[in-house]
Amino acid sequence: MTAPLPRRLLAEGLGTLLLLAIVIGSGVMAERLAGGNAAIALLANTAATVAGLWVLIELFGPLSGAHFNPAVSAVMAWRGALARREFVPYVAVQLVGAMLGAWLAHTMFDMTVVQWSTKLRSGVGQWIAEAVATAGLLLTILRAPSARVAPLVAAWIGAAYWFTASTSFANPAAAFGRMWSDSFAGISPASVPAFVAAQLAGAAAGALLHQALGASARDGSPR
Amino acid sequence: MTAPLPRRLLAEGLGTLLLLAIVIGSGVMAERLAGGNAAIALLANTAATVAGLWVLIELFGPLSGAHFNPAVSAVMAWRGALARREFVPYVAVQLVGAMLGAWLAHTMFDMTVVQWSTKLRSGVGQWIAEAVATAGLLLTILRAPSARVAPLVAAWIGAAYWFTASTSFANPAAAFGRMWSDSFAGISPASVPAFVAAQLAGAAAGALLHQALGASARDGSPR
Amino acid sequence: MTAPLPRRLLAEGLGTLLLLAIVIGSGVMAERLAGGNAAIALLANTAATVAGLWVLIELFGPLSGAHFNPAVSAVMAWRGALARREFVPYVAVQLVGAMLGAWLAHTMFDMTVVQWSTKLRSGVGQWIAEAVATAGLLLTILRAPSARVAPLVAAWIGAAYWFTASTSFANPAAAFGRMWSDSFAGISPASVPAFVAAQLAGAAAGALLHQALGASARDGSPR
Amino acid sequence: MTAPLPRRLLAEGLGTLLLLAIVIGSGVMAERLAGGNAAIALLANTAATVAGLWVLIELFGPLSGAHFNPAVSAVMAWRGALARREFVPYVAVQLVGAMLGAWLAHTMFDMTVVQWSTKLRSGVGQWIAEAVATAGLLLTILRAPSARVAPLVAAWIGAAYWFTASTSFANPAAAFGRMWSDSFAGISPASVPAFVAAQLAGAAAGALLHQALGASARDGSPR
Repeated sequence: MTAPLPRRLLAEGLGTLLLLAIVIGSGVMAERLAGGNAAIALLANTAATVAGLWVLIELFGPLSGAHFNPAVSAVMAWRGALARREFVPYVAVQLVGAMLGAWLAHTMFDMTVVQWSTKLRSGVGQWIAEAVATAGLLLTILRAPSARVAPLVAAWIGAAYWFTASTSFANPAAAFGRMWSDSFAGISPASVPAFVAAQLAGAAAGALLHQALGASARDGSPR
Repeated sequence: MTAPLPRRLLAEGLGTLLLLAIVIGSGVMAERLAGGNAAIALLANTAATVAGLWVLIELFGPLSGAHFNPAVSAVMAWRGALARREFVPYVAVQLVGAMLGAWLAHTMFDMTVVQWSTKLRSGVGQWIAEAVATAGLLLTILRAPSARVAPLVAAWIGAAYWFTASTSFANPAAAFGRMWSDSFAGISPASVPAFVAAQLAGAAAGALLHQALGASARDGSPR
Repeated sequence: MTAPLPRRLLAEGLGTLLLLAIVIGSGVMAERLAGGNAAIALLANTAATVAGLWVLIELFGPLSGAHFNPAVSAVMAWRGALARREFVPYVAVQLVGAMLGAWLAHTMFDMTVVQWSTKLRSGVGQWIAEAVATAGLLLTILRAPSARVAPLVAAWIGAAYWFTASTSFANPAAAFGRMWSDSFAGISPASVPAFVAAQLAGAAAGALLHQALGASARDGSPR
Repeated sequence: MTAPLPRRLLAEGLGTLLLLAIVIGSGVMAERLAGGNAAIALLANTAATVAGLWVLIELFGPLSGAHFNPAVSAVMAWRGALARREFVPYVAVQLVGAMLGAWLAHTMFDMTVVQWSTKLRSGVGQWIAEAVATAGLLLTILRAPSARVAPLVAAWIGAAYWFTASTSFANPAAAFGRMWSDSFAGISPASVPAFVAAQLAGAAAGALLHQALGASARDGSPR
């Protein structure tokens, strides 16, 4: 990560934009084609997200770290892996990118560009789910063998789309971006604050668990 | 595996907990969404299990070996790869983790936390299936190129979800944990002992087959 | 890429032929089996395309670069990675290969060999989709770690099958080849020119974005 | 491949047995669960085959080459990569293993163990399909980067399940083994000889194409 800040911000913003376009766009396509079978729709939404997220992390990781996620940037700033003065710009481009990604998806699918989700996502179970998904995301980022971080992060998110009751947003920028889309992947603005709080709590729990498990054997031995 | 025992037990317990939360949680989600099509439900359950298992083995393998499975720990203790005095603690945290994983899944999906499965899984065909699935699992663990053990174990379990009549538990801790869930992935307590016996027989057969095939060429040549 | 030109043209032609046979053939199979559920059909079409494209790039990349795509060859010629006098022969074999691939698919499925698609694919949303899909394809080719370019290109196309409104052709030769097939994957000849224009615009945008992001850290550090 | 012949034959036989158990068993499971939707059934059958084939090649490749396929063994004997006196024993254990694999699948699923398929698979289109699938299989085996041969062979077969009209047997031992199963994956004995002839023709075509493309750049450069 020796690139100058503007280039890294371009990478974070563009990556988050494409991530949200992938998540929301594939949700729209899946819902249109699935004929009412929500499992098939979520399967397609999951496959597109996993494949796209893997690509985006591989492309932008060497530039900006490929956080695409304020909870990840917060942990990185706390650990000293991101300069603290860069935290706010990182989050700003992530949020703007997420919103623009929703708008790009709508534009491609000939939908009203600016819209708000009406899908309420709430309840203790879903909040625990968001915390679990985000804690696992941080553990994966912090402990996975470095050559495989990108596919493993994508695989974790894919698994969490199904095993968590919330379909795993695990990312405040994703929650913010999906808020702008009244489609399959959307979330009502009223449901966002609790999701974000749960994600931040989960990120903190993941970082603490990482410390409790001790220095990562990461890259130490072939396994 | 030079980490102190408590950290390795934390890794085994946490990994098994998350594995069962993934298996059971994705089964609940899949059944809720699939509208009665069991093939779509099992496809989603398989995809989530494969992705999640791959991540968990990569994250916890360098710490504890990432057995998450008493049959694997038994073979490792027999081969001298796990100190014999550590076998019982390993199995204990695997079983407790499995039960807690079921409870976590129920909590996320707003289900009664403590419940028992009523799904009978029995018959000679299913017992042979469990033995075949577990024998193949051990062969994979013992012979796969070490850099690819994690995804290959996940791929084997994914294949065995479909080609074995029992949907491949292949793990006494998984059987124990699923016993606590009256959902898609559950198994009646009455069906567990025969499944476990078949898994242990399969694990022994896998270890013996490994010896009959001779020293593994593992990591010898690029192939 | 030190092979003589005729061998490289054989590789480009054969690869594009097989790519189109895969795209069109799996679309035919999927539509025949899916019983009217377009999401299941597109899921199968996507899986076959991703797997097949990955194989073809790995097999033919070391020979010809495995472009299979005039937009990619154009960018490569512009960047000096393809001799300019080889650009026209590359595109010629790609187009002929694509048409023959459609015909091979029809032959295998006992369909009329020579046919024209009647499926109109048009509109600003779809054109933006093609530009986005092709820009992302170029970014992936130009920035992905070189050992993983092949699976990452396949993954990008797989994601774009779902998140772009056009199901991501992202390739003038694919548009040309699919024009010859009145099946699931087809596109009416009348819709091809605008698709190709959007793809070329997207390829240029991808190449410019690559420059704006600065020298790729590609292969510099493990991540 | 320095292991003594008996061990290599055990590896070939066991691998082919498990391969057929996977192909036939997952077909039975898929058909039972899919509620008549053949696309979902084939999708599950494909996923299990790809995952299982990848594992089997990784496990047994270092021992025996993991052909599991008389057409592959024939090309290897022709190229001098398999001693000619070992060709007949290789094919013998492949055929016996394939039959036993069918029987194992039937045993696990509580079906009549010895049975014959009544599913006719015939016609010029299907024979061309078998030749194309087998030619591509040989190209993959002979040209893929050696560290990725195993997953690429599995990916090729997965793609060919969908893009060839015959669902890609591409293997005389697979045709022989599936003949013994009146289930989803079966093939009538009357249809086997033409399938095998097409596969052998395709294998020869693949080997010749490999020569026409010139010395493989395999493992020469990172790409």
